Amino acid sequence: MKVTVLVRPKQGILDPQGEAVLGSLRKLGFAVGGARVGRLVDLEVDEPTATEARAQVERMCQELLANPLIESFEIEVPSEPEATGT
Amino acid sequence: MKVTVLVRPKQGILDPQGEAVLGSLRKLGFAVGGARVGRLVDLEVDEPTATEARAQVERMCQELLANPLIESFEIEVPSEPEATGT
Repeated sequence: MKVTVLVRPKQGILDPQGEAVLGSLRKLGFAVGGARVGRLVDLEVDEPTATEARAQVERMCQELLANPLIESFEIEVPSEPEATGT
Repeated sequence: MKVTVLVRPKQGILDPQGEAVLGSLRKLGFAVGGARVGRLVDLEVDEPTATEARAQVERMCQELLANPLIESFEIEVPSEPEATGT
């Protein structure tokens, strides 16, 4: 199952890469109000259900993929069904 | 309007950052089949409609945000309506 993790600098955290992109876009003549740069990680995860895949990837984010002090993360799992009451 | 750009290394293009993430995740004990690392850019764009915002950001991608030789990009615009026949 393909899972995508989006990692963004938290609000208020300095983002020099975003500042550089913003400056360059403006120099090129684009009207841009702000730019923030984060990263994305596409993972191929071997879990039977979307719910388990999400839980597994959440652990990966906490242990390696994101720095919770300065970054927030979002996990995109394909077509996650509602949890059933089992 | 907030627009998000997702930039990924194209298939077949070497991704050393992804290889490093994959190796580290496996060392931590996670069963991962593959990992590819790209980047995301959140932009605050000053266009009246989603369609215009998308066109504007597509130009930004071609001119600055992505390297079309080795990267593909995807533009996420909030709730884009169908183009009307005007």
